[in-house]
Amino acid sequence: MISDSTVKAIMEAARERDWDRFHSPATLSRSISIEAAELLECYQWGDEARDGDLGHVADELADVLTYCIEMAECMGLDMDKIVLDKLAKTKLKYPVETSKGSTEKYRELH
Amino acid sequence: MISDSTVKAIMEAARERDWDRFHSPATLSRSISIEAAELLECYQWGDEARDGDLGHVADELADVLTYCIEMAECMGLDMDKIVLDKLAKTKLKYPVETSKGSTEKYRELH
Amino acid sequence: MISDSTVKAIMEAARERDWDRFHSPATLSRSISIEAAELLECYQWGDEARDGDLGHVADELADVLTYCIEMAECMGLDMDKIVLDKLAKTKLKYPVETSKGSTEKYRELH
Amino acid sequence: MISDSTVKAIMEAARERDWDRFHSPATLSRSISIEAAELLECYQWGDEARDGDLGHVADELADVLTYCIEMAECMGLDMDKIVLDKLAKTKLKYPVETSKGSTEKYRELH
Repeated sequence: MISDSTVKAIMEAARERDWDRFHSPATLSRSISIEAAELLECYQWGDEARDGDLGHVADELADVLTYCIEMAECMGLDMDKIVLDKLAKTKLKYPVETSKGSTEKYRELH
Repeated sequence: MISDSTVKAIMEAARERDWDRFHSPATLSRSISIEAAELLECYQWGDEARDGDLGHVADELADVLTYCIEMAECMGLDMDKIVLDKLAKTKLKYPVETSKGSTEKYRELH
Repeated sequence: MISDSTVKAIMEAARERDWDRFHSPATLSRSISIEAAELLECYQWGDEARDGDLGHVADELADVLTYCIEMAECMGLDMDKIVLDKLAKTKLKYPVETSKGSTEKYRELH
Repeated sequence: MISDSTVKAIMEAARERDWDRFHSPATLSRSISIEAAELLECYQWGDEARDGDLGHVADELADVLTYCIEMAECMGLDMDKIVLDKLAKTKLKYPVETSKGSTEKYRELH
């Protein structure tokens, strides 16, 4: 889970440093892509984490999550709500009976 | 926040459809990058969301978060813990006194 | 332009260092995304290049192009041909008369 | 190779449709990342191209190259020159004697 107190700690650290003035949906969408690529880099050359360093993978995933939290806050979005709303759409589009074991979702999902 | 029940709902939907067999840290790191680019696409040509469609932005952010949740679960990582651990490192590296109003972090942060 | 001699120089440098054994369409597609994000990082916080450093932007664009060259070579693709083939499709889909001045392509192009 | 006539054809198609007014280094850097992710998507779940569709891979690589060409033109950069300049730096940093067979470059290269 990501608790409210974690979200608050993230936002407070940004505010204390006046970093939040750099934050907009557009700049944060770029930041998420940049950090996602740093995470991807851990698996650039193969299925095992570079140098087997899982702590580094965790840090990069944390960076992606941190910018996602900041983007949700910046836009006034409730993370639980948007994730569950999207899940409801996905479940409707891919019913268990017809989707089970199929990679169809994985071809079509955007 | 992202509550435990939301995490459970995500993981159950994947299991029910046998989608979790496609999940590994490597495939999920790619999925996060791909969804992050879909989010970036909302702001491809400017600072306003394409077509002003904030619901679409919310859905794309939800897709990034969903794959982040699945990657954390896949690797047995506690999202609260990794985000707070990374925040502690960031705070140590950029003390309020010297970082306030500076974009230094934004040049160096990876 | 990117001349044949440039392509040869890139491939020879990789071969001399035995780096080409890391190259496959899959690993190179990841490498292109990773370098593209480094290029994006130059414009993370605004429309001006970070630190106004255009030489750095050029280097990052060169990294993307280098991996594109390696991927085309790895797959036996003729870059001129694939770019012109795709251009022909785009021109067919977006005739000048109906597309001029419209951002339609920019909403739909994937 | 990517010949001058291909570059000209790309730029003319954009001009005819007034699409070049959307082009700036910042918007094109985002476009390159977005198309790179579409290319990555071909290899999202494994080392084989989705549906074994290599024509689709070629089209996505062409999209990345097209935006790279447009960015180079937009910034007045000579693609041959920037690629060879960057190659010279890479060769200096990773001499054949010490780099051969090593993945060092692949850990450090950004």
